[in-house]
Order: sequence, then C-alpha cells, then structure tokens
Amino acid sequence: MTLPELAVFDELLTYVRETSLLQTSADLLEWDERTGMPVQGGEYRARQVTLLRGMVHERRTSATLGQWLAQLQDAFAADESTSPRRSAIARMREDFERDCRLPRTLVESLATATVRGQQAWERARHEDDFSLFRAELTEILRLKREAALCLAKEGESLYDALLGEYEPGARVAELAPVFASLRQHLVELIGRIGVVPKHQAPKIECLRREYPVETQRSFSRLVAEAVGFDFRRGRLDETTHPFCTSLGPDDCRILTRYQSHWFPSGLFGTLHEAGHGIYEQGLPRAWYGCPPGTYASLGIHESQSRLWENLVGRSLGFWKYFFPLLEQSFPQSLGNVGCEQFHAAVNAVQPTLIRVEADEATYNLHILVRLEIEQELLSGELLVEDLPAAWNARYREVLGIEPSSDAAGVLQDVHWSAGLIGYFPTYTLGNIYAAQLFQAAERELGALEEMFSEGEFAPLLQWLRTHIHRHGRSYDAAELIARACGERPNSEPLVASLNARYGRIYSL
Amino acid sequence: MTLPELAVFDELLTYVRETSLLQTSADLLEWDERTGMPVQGGEYRARQVTLLRGMVHERRTSATLGQWLAQLQDAFAADESTSPRRSAIARMREDFERDCRLPRTLVESLATATVRGQQAWERARHEDDFSLFRAELTEILRLKREAALCLAKEGESLYDALLGEYEPGARVAELAPVFASLRQHLVELIGRIGVVPKHQAPKIECLRREYPVETQRSFSRLVAEAVGFDFRRGRLDETTHPFCTSLGPDDCRILTRYQSHWFPSGLFGTLHEAGHGIYEQGLPRAWYGCPPGTYASLGIHESQSRLWENLVGRSLGFWKYFFPLLEQSFPQSLGNVGCEQFHAAVNAVQPTLIRVEADEATYNLHILVRLEIEQELLSGELLVEDLPAAWNARYREVLGIEPSSDAAGVLQDVHWSAGLIGYFPTYTLGNIYAAQLFQAAERELGALEEMFSEGEFAPLLQWLRTHIHRHGRSYDAAELIARACGERPNSEPLVASLNARYGRIYSL
Repeated sequence: MTLPELAVFDELLTYVRETSLLQTSADLLEWDERTGMPVQGGEYRARQVTLLRGMVHERRTSATLGQWLAQLQDAFAADESTSPRRSAIARMREDFERDCRLPRTLVESLATATVRGQQAWERARHEDDFSLFRAELTEILRLKREAALCLAKEGESLYDALLGEYEPGARVAELAPVFASLRQHLVELIGRIGVVPKHQAPKIECLRREYPVETQRSFSRLVAEAVGFDFRRGRLDETTHPFCTSLGPDDCRILTRYQSHWFPSGLFGTLHEAGHGIYEQGLPRAWYGCPPGTYASLGIHESQSRLWENLVGRSLGFWKYFFPLLEQSFPQSLGNVGCEQFHAAVNAVQPTLIRVEADEATYNLHILVRLEIEQELLSGELLVEDLPAAWNARYREVLGIEPSSDAAGVLQDVHWSAGLIGYFPTYTLGNIYAAQLFQAAERELGALEEMFSEGEFAPLLQWLRTHIHRHGRSYDAAELIARACGERPNSEPLVASLNARYGRIYSL
Repeated sequence: MTLPELAVFDELLTYVRETSLLQTSADLLEWDERTGMPVQGGEYRARQVTLLRGMVHERRTSATLGQWLAQLQDAFAADESTSPRRSAIARMREDFERDCRLPRTLVESLATATVRGQQAWERARHEDDFSLFRAELTEILRLKREAALCLAKEGESLYDALLGEYEPGARVAELAPVFASLRQHLVELIGRIGVVPKHQAPKIECLRREYPVETQRSFSRLVAEAVGFDFRRGRLDETTHPFCTSLGPDDCRILTRYQSHWFPSGLFGTLHEAGHGIYEQGLPRAWYGCPPGTYASLGIHESQSRLWENLVGRSLGFWKYFFPLLEQSFPQSLGNVGCEQFHAAVNAVQPTLIRVEADEATYNLHILVRLEIEQELLSGELLVEDLPAAWNARYREVLGIEPSSDAAGVLQDVHWSAGLIGYFPTYTLGNIYAAQLFQAAERELGALEEMFSEGEFAPLLQWLRTHIHRHGRSYDAAELIARACGERPNSEPLVASLNARYGRIYSL
C-alpha cells in the first residue's frame, strides 16, 4: 500500500467505526426495549430505532464509501498478501454491494415493523393469543420477501437470500442433504432411547423442585464468570426470550430467564448466551466495528453458544466441579439427589415443546420444523393465518407431540417478530460446528472433561480464542472450521458425540 | 398563517422532532451509563454520546433551520395572537441563536468530558478520593468557561450565561438579594429551632432502624404511583445519585437510591424524582420535543420535585394516609413509633452534610455554599485543587459542620461531573416557586392536607396540570408563576410555610 492509499484506508476505518457508533446506539435502544422499556414507550422507540437504522444504512451505502472501497480494492489487485487489511476491504466491499441492493425506505420500514412486531409478539405470547401478532407478522413477512427479492443473486432462492444474511454463502439445496442425514441419525437415536425401560432412564423430577430465583441469579452469574464471561465488559439481565447483544467492544449484554420450578431454563440459558458473549469478548478489540473484529457467521456464533451450553455445561466433568456448589446454593431442592443423577437429569431425552429447552437429540428436529415452515411462509404456500395449525401439525408429525397453546407453540421464539427469518438453520450449523470444534480441541488439549472437573475452562477458551475468536470475519465459516479442525463442516462428530453421550446415560 | 407558511411550519416541526429522536437516543445512552453499563464500557460510550450530541448540535444550528425560523418569524410579525405556534417559533428562534453561539467541537468536547467526568466522579466517590476526579473536573470547568464566553450576552457575567441555560433570563445580581433575605430568615429559624430543648425535638432514631431494601422498593413504587407517576409511561430504577430523564413522550425514567438503615433516602428520593417525572408526563404529548411540549425552566422543574417531596411527602396529612401501610410493610422497624412521631422525625431540622437529604430549613444553605463556590471556580478565584478544602471551610462557616470525607463533602453531587454548573440555584428557585404554587392551589382547592390524609392527590395534581404542566415552555418561569399564583416569584410563601411547619413540630 502506498502512503496515499494508507491515508484512504484510515479515513475509511474512521468512517466505518463512526457508523458502528450509531449502530450500537440503535442496538442499545433495542436492548432497552426488551429489558425494561415502559409498555407505552413502544411507538416512540420504533421511531428512534427507525431513524438510527436509516442513518446507518445511508452511511453504509454512501457514494464516498463506494469510492474509497473501489480505490482500495484496486490498490490490492496487484497485492497477493493475506493481511487483515486485505480481507477487511474485501468484506466491506461485499457488505457495501449487499447494502446497496436494499433501499433505505425498506430498511426503515423493517426497523419500524420489527420494533412493533416484538411488542406485539410479547403481548401475544403473554396473552397466549396468536391473533394479536398476526398483522405484524404478515407485515414483517411482506417486507422480508421484498428484501429477499432485492438481495437474491442469480441462482439463489428467496430463502437463500435471507439465509445468506446470517450464514454467508449457505444455500438450502446444499444444507438439505446434510440436515436430512442428521435427521435420520437423530430419529434413529431417539428411537433407541425411546425403548429404554423407564426405570433405566434419567429422572427429571429433581429439576422441577423449587429453585429460588434470587439464588439462581447468583449461581448463573458465578458459572458464567467461571467459564470466562468477563463482567467488567458485560452484564447479565433477564427478558422474555434470552439473547446476546454487543453495544461496544467492552459492553456485551447477555440475557436469560429464570423459572422457579424448572432449573435448566435459567442456567442453560445463561450458559448459551455466555457462549455468545465470550465469542464477542474475544473478537479483536482494535478492529471493533470492522470485519476483522466481527463474528464470522451466525452459525459460528451459535457454535460457541451451543458448545458452552451443551458440550461443556451438560458434561459430567462440568457437574463434578459445580455440583457441590449447587448443593450448597439449593440445600432445600436437591435432597438426596447426587451428582451423577443430576447430570443424567439435565441430559434426559424427551420430545418437548420448547426449542431452547430441548435436549440435544431432539433439538435439531425443532429447527427442521422451523426451516420447513419458514420456506413455506416465504413462498406464500403457507398463509400467516394458517400458521398455528401448520405449526401444531408439524410438531405432531416430527416430534410426536402437540403444543397445548400458542405460547408453547408458534409464539415461543422471538425471531420472526424481530425479522429474523432464515436464521434458524444457523443453530443446527452451530451444533455441527461445535461438535467438530470440541473434538479438534480435545485432540490437541487432551481430555477436556477432566479439566472441567477441576474447574479448568481456560484451556478450552484459549483454544477457541486462537482458532476462532481472533480471526473475526477474516474467513467464511467453512474455511474457519476447516482451519481449526482440519476438515470441512460435517455432521459426523455431532452424531458421534450424541451417540457417545446418550450411550453412556441410557446404557444403549 | 398562509398555506405555504403552514407547510414550512410542518416541515420545521418534523425536523425538530427528528432532532429530538436523536437527542433522546443520546439520553438513553447516558441513562444506561448511570444505571448498569459495564465498568469498562465507558470509553466507547463517551464516543457514542459525543457523536450523537454532535449530530444533534449540527441539526440545531443548520442553515435550513435558520431560514425556516426567519421566514416564520416574519410571518408572525404582523400577527398579534398568542397561539402555541407563535410562542413555539419565538422559543425555537431563541434556542437557535443560542445554539449557534456554540461551536460543534465544543459541544462534542463537553459530551466526551462529561461522560468521562461522570465515570471518574463515580469512582472517586466510591473510593472517597477527590484526586481521582480532579483532572476531569478541571477539563469540564475549562470547557464550561469556554461555553460561557460563547453564550454570555451584553451585561451578563460568565455565571449568568451558564445559569441562563437552566433558568432562562435569571441573573445572579437579581437572585442575590432574594437569596440573601431567604438566608437571613432561615438562619433565624434554625437558630430558634437550635435552642429548643432536646426532649421537645423530634427523635430521628426510628429512621435509622433496619428497613429492608426490597420492601423499600415496593413501598416507594406504590407511593410514586399513588401520587400520580404513571408506570405505563415510566419506570423507577436505582443509581448512585437520583435523577430523572425523559426518553420519549411515554418513557420517563426516575431513579433513587436506598439505604437499609436510613429510611428517608429511598422514599424522599423517589418522591422528588416522581415530582419531576409527573411534570414530564403532564407536558403536552402532541408537542413532544418542541417548546410547547418542554419544561419551562429547571426552577419550575425543581418546584415540582420539591413540592411532591416536601410539601406533600413531609406533610402530616400524607403520613396519616400512608403510615398504616408503612407499619404493615415494616412491622419489625417501627415498633412503638406512632404516626405523629414518625412525621416529626422526617421533619427534624439539623445541619447535615448531604444536600439531597437535608431538611427544608437547612436545604437552601447547601445551595448557597454551592452557588458561591461555583462562581469562584468559574472566575478562577478558586482552583480545583483547593476545592475540597474550600468546600469544607464553607460548610463549617455556613452550616457549622465539616464533612468527614470527600464522599460526604465535595463529591456528594453528580452535577459538576455532568457539566451542570450554574444549575444549583434552580433548586432554591424551585423551593420558592413550590411554596407559592402550594399556597395558590390551597387557596383554590381548600385544605390539601385533608385530601392527602384520604389518599386524594389527584386534585393537586390536576391543579398543577392546569396551571403549570400544560403550558410547557410557552411562558418563562416568572410569568408562569405569576399566572398560576397571581404574584411574581418571591420567597414569602416559602418562609411562611417553613415557619408554620416547624412552629408546630418544634412548638416555637
């Protein structure tokens, strides 16, 4: 790079970082909306978010930005190096082209519709009445369809265009066989588990005893801190549907929800979001707001959350370390339950209604239901008014159970109300990646569960920092996984991991 | 107004309201900074706030805005009506001229300095070490002096220029004799109280018993709701130094702080901020973000907070109504204490160190100390490094007591760290206005305390809505008071009210 080019690069970075200041301000407006905004504040909040998102979009599609990027890409054309600068420019260029396909009015309409949508969803869920969310979801779908039409490249379906927002480069046609094969293995595994005699299966009654919420709060915080979430650079709050959001390089917010008579909800929600948060906190600070300081894809993001939630948090080693503290914290609740029994309980396999609380064997079936429904909604094959019935039918078919209410069915997830359509497959990708990463880390570090049983989570964290976090968005998901694990994304490690885990617990 | 002029007016309003969307987004960033932002998030937060404040300033001083205002002012020149539109234009014009005196760089520097300042102050206060705040305060003073130089009009002192930000039109030279006469009356009253034999004075020991914070929270919320704060359009949180901020027409945030062994702190902090909040919630919604939908002055704002805190919350009628509930809520704490005894305790007069917890007789002496010190700091007569010593000396002189620590002395108030220099006198103005308003309301409505003892706060609230809230910023403070009370601002009602209150309690 010549000196004048370096000067352009600096100008570009300053500009991009300033955009990010606006972006994160809008993110705070949304975090606040979902944590404690007064109920009547919604309409004005929608206007605030809309204005900021519109301004961000204008900056992200400005002619000046386009010129800088063209200039710098030319400068790199001759250069064969793989510096972060080079990949930063390439990524920014992709983003710029993508953003330019979306008109500002559409971005603004989506901002308004999703703030309103989340409020309507929250009410509908609370009142257990899908009809209170119908109009807002219809509008969101209409706008997302419009966005998909703008974004779809040659050979991409509308669904691909939306999926690509979260998992760049992913295509339904390529995911389909992977997911189908995974489904087959899972159905087979669930079948084997289903015939295990009841007295040999884990008893989950101990998870339904009373766990005072105040104590759950301090226990969850302690666990999040122990696995590596940095509370000087983040915080843990409560909301209707757990999530994680970054409001700056040193301000990562994670949220969970506690149920006094269902222990897994609060703790595993915390661990899941802490996994997201640990990833955000491990991205290169100096590049915050630019591609090298940004997550690689949402599949990779979910791999981090699902890894800490399940491969760590549901391991026996983890509970060997934390169970004594659990006993101390909830002396009334555990009674005669021992560590192994408790560990088995948090791993019990049973088709249930709520995705975020599903065991690992049935979890991906919840995703498949959503993937199919989303595609039908987007194509117009399924109408919003028929959605609750279609949801229930699909659950009966795939999981063999039927939601007793909309709140426990079609209204359970926040995603659609937030405009996140095409997002769900990234959870299954996350599960696949997580198993690959865990296996690769173990190959290098030795038996991880033994470390967990000593309270040692730092080696795994460090491994993830080195192989995933520090690379930001410099590689796409498949390449990042290949570099970290020495193999392309594939579901074999996940299937092997589930077979091993449940084989032990259910004596299969 | 002609049709084209009306069109300009509409365009202007849309523009001003959009500015207000940005402004309130910055306000949320600051609210969040003071309620729960992770400790390391400060530097990035300062950059977010600085960017938004700079953008707001640019919009508030844009040439387009200037042209619209000039056009509309001309349109009104021939018009003698006193419509809200006319006063809105006049106020916006004043604001525009004032804002244009401040360069954007200065506004941005102040935004950065005050976010940093508040973080440094918080640390310094926590560690009880003024030196941790010295550099930041020096910088804030330097910038405020620069702002005062930009803002001061002919014949105004630097201090006047800052005071005018909070109380438009007020001048130190005019306040001085009012404050001096008030001081004389207060010193005389405190003197008479000081010689009352100890056994005749209220016993405050009952306020120092244990009041569990969780119960204080629900009690405070209940009281705030009972006097008229609307929780569908607002919320109550906790922070180091109580404050109130509006993040939209339906989103008013009030904050208090609880001490488990000093009851007045939490409840009277809540009532004070609820008073501010009730005023904000009573401003004309349709004009939100424009002068007719904005508070008249900070003196008027403080009159609302001090009125609900003291004239309502410390009245015997109030406690006749709330004492049974207090007994129910804190059965362990009150023991044999009765309603009258409790009422006397919350009205005990005693020179103390903390302004926000001072009784009404000594309160204004705290303000006088700050007013004198601020003037000296601004003129450079007093150096920041000498501030703690000067503070302590002044307290000894004026209140006869000396702070045992910086935290209980010069570091107690958030104001200077937030750049609020010249703000303190508005508290005394607020006390003066509050007494006038209460007297006028009582003249019209009859004995208010009797209503309070029945839990009836709505008549007083309605009177304030009619005479103060609904007018927004259409009149300046003095005119608003004159219209509401039939007399110009003066301290006689305040002196009379204090003499009557303490005369009864201390049998003077």
